[in-house]
Amino acid sequence: PSNLKDGVTKRIKHVQKFGKDDPRRIIHSIKVGVSLTLVSMLYYVRPLYNSFGVSGMWAIVTVVVVSEFTVGGTLSKGLNRAFATLIAGALGVGAVHLARLCGHKAEPIVLGILVFSLGSAVTFSRFFPRIKQRYDYGALIFILTFSMVAVSGYRTDEILVIAYQRLSTILIGGTICILVSIFVFPVWAGEDLHKLVANNIIKLANSLEGFEGEYFPSSEKTSKETNSSVREYKGILTSETTEDTLANLARWEPGHGRFRLSHPWTKYFKIAGLVRQCAIHFEVLNACVLSDAKAPQDFISKILEPCSIMSREAGEALKAIAKSIKTMSRYHVCVNTHIKNSKNAIENLRLALKLSFPETDKDLLEIIPGVTMASTLIYIVNYVEKI
Amino acid sequence: PSNLKDGVTKRIKHVQKFGKDDPRRIIHSIKVGVSLTLVSMLYYVRPLYNSFGVSGMWAIVTVVVVSEFTVGGTLSKGLNRAFATLIAGALGVGAVHLARLCGHKAEPIVLGILVFSLGSAVTFSRFFPRIKQRYDYGALIFILTFSMVAVSGYRTDEILVIAYQRLSTILIGGTICILVSIFVFPVWAGEDLHKLVANNIIKLANSLEGFEGEYFPSSEKTSKETNSSVREYKGILTSETTEDTLANLARWEPGHGRFRLSHPWTKYFKIAGLVRQCAIHFEVLNACVLSDAKAPQDFISKILEPCSIMSREAGEALKAIAKSIKTMSRYHVCVNTHIKNSKNAIENLRLALKLSFPETDKDLLEIIPGVTMASTLIYIVNYVEKI
Repeated sequence: PSNLKDGVTKRIKHVQKFGKDDPRRIIHSIKVGVSLTLVSMLYYVRPLYNSFGVSGMWAIVTVVVVSEFTVGGTLSKGLNRAFATLIAGALGVGAVHLARLCGHKAEPIVLGILVFSLGSAVTFSRFFPRIKQRYDYGALIFILTFSMVAVSGYRTDEILVIAYQRLSTILIGGTICILVSIFVFPVWAGEDLHKLVANNIIKLANSLEGFEGEYFPSSEKTSKETNSSVREYKGILTSETTEDTLANLARWEPGHGRFRLSHPWTKYFKIAGLVRQCAIHFEVLNACVLSDAKAPQDFISKILEPCSIMSREAGEALKAIAKSIKTMSRYHVCVNTHIKNSKNAIENLRLALKLSFPETDKDLLEIIPGVTMASTLIYIVNYVEKI
Repeated sequence: PSNLKDGVTKRIKHVQKFGKDDPRRIIHSIKVGVSLTLVSMLYYVRPLYNSFGVSGMWAIVTVVVVSEFTVGGTLSKGLNRAFATLIAGALGVGAVHLARLCGHKAEPIVLGILVFSLGSAVTFSRFFPRIKQRYDYGALIFILTFSMVAVSGYRTDEILVIAYQRLSTILIGGTICILVSIFVFPVWAGEDLHKLVANNIIKLANSLEGFEGEYFPSSEKTSKETNSSVREYKGILTSETTEDTLANLARWEPGHGRFRLSHPWTKYFKIAGLVRQCAIHFEVLNACVLSDAKAPQDFISKILEPCSIMSREAGEALKAIAKSIKTMSRYHVCVNTHIKNSKNAIENLRLALKLSFPETDKDLLEIIPGVTMASTLIYIVNYVEKI
């Protein structure tokens, strides 16, 4: 039993830690709970129940399905759902009327053909990347609503009343969700994207500065300490999907805080792409650090100074850029000086290489593209920040 | 008007081409249409309608939502939906009975508290990566069903009948979907994953062989021709998400064709990871090809032979591996000979370098880690294939 108890407390601690890591998760869960409770008023309060009836159920469905973590997600799902329901509902009512004109015997056949063809066509349209990216959910709801209206229209005569009730409850549910997600501790996808990109650049800077201690081990820094910072760039390589999703959702969001409505979200994409390019070069650099074949000692001592200046200055420049992105100010003069310094270091390194005529400079030389890459990256980021 | 007509025909051609690129898309769309038509029989046929009533609607909802492109996707959604509905329905009925015990006044309050707390808790659980990966949809359906049953239980006394009708219609809808997706032109996620990994290795081989012509331009090959093959590896860098999803879905699939039930899907992951590592080195190689700073001509002529042998042999080895993965046979002897040849070439290259004492061998030397990487990759892939 004590074993079981230990296991349970461990589990609980794990969950607590998970919640503390990002308290917005807890807030989001509570928000969903609040929306659900609000929407169930449609059932509990008698006058509301009298006017909407069982259709109140659709408000609950909407709340559960539309509630997303970010504002952009909620807005995109809510709007998709509302418009898809509206269009599909109208078409469905039309289909039922059309089928009735064909007589009682032919009605199910006509309806079946209509459902089959529209269902297939919209499913096919969901494969197109552009529709998939933005309107996938809307297409799903379209098929759903259309078939439901068309098929159930066969058995009921009050189709217009039902359609009206459902549409209004879906609108109520969607509105509650959107309002809650915007006004109660909102989580903006755009802000997340902004922070993610800035943090990735800082990670890059940390890794770059870590390499120095890694490749030229000195007594001051222990290997353990730098090791973690060097590996930081690994996360950048896999963050593409997250950026993709966030940028997509950010487009749905209205202007908020420091971001205007037509904030250039695609710019973030470009920066993130460059950062990833840079991280790829780091991967190679990392392979050099881990490889056993190191250059001879006397050669290393010659190149140590320019290399360490290079990586330090480039790292500083990256940090300055990250800061300017975070505060959304123009880039500072210090960015330029750092870049200048690291470029000077590259020149020095070239000089040192010419003097030493090395044979086994393989490991070192791979640092050059890394740093050159970093400096070009810096230039381009500056360019983007000017806008 | 002719402009408009041109635009329309262009559109139509685009759609046709899109369908031809992967005819399984069209088949899938038709499959969805068939399932929809089948399930609407619940409405059209009078005896069925009499026993299920309006709940037939839920079969339609299930079909639309559960129909996924791959068998794994359909199975995972269908099973998630069925079990989540079952559990949540039972809990919901229990909650309604509990609330009734507390008297009429307290009933909505008790129900509200229950819905709020369970809704929040399950929403929070959806943030855990392990649950998100496999049971995200189930959790969503759980909240949905529980709140619907608990809330609507306040207004109706026939809750058990309704719950039974819904559950059975959902099971009917889910079963139709799963049967259609398995037996009518199935699309297996596992097979897609298998092909994707094999094709990525072939792309790698093509790029590797393309580099030779790119870096050492000869009169025989035009730059245009090789250019496209060299860039092929770029797709590998971004295919991680697809692999991730496919491997996830493949786990849900039963044994089919050449794949047994407990096929080692995680192995594909490892191979894909190594392939991606390799592609990252190619990215650096590519940067060398594009850079203006090339080594002097006489130096290039010295290293040309070992380099071209290296890349050719490594490419051949990769192709042989891809073939053995595709046919699921053990690796052939020829893989080993190709690896041996490319290793010999590396030795030759080292020798050539020692003789030439080059100053600006920067571009070339970066090819070495690429090829070394390729040969280690080959070894590990062999190891995996033995299992």
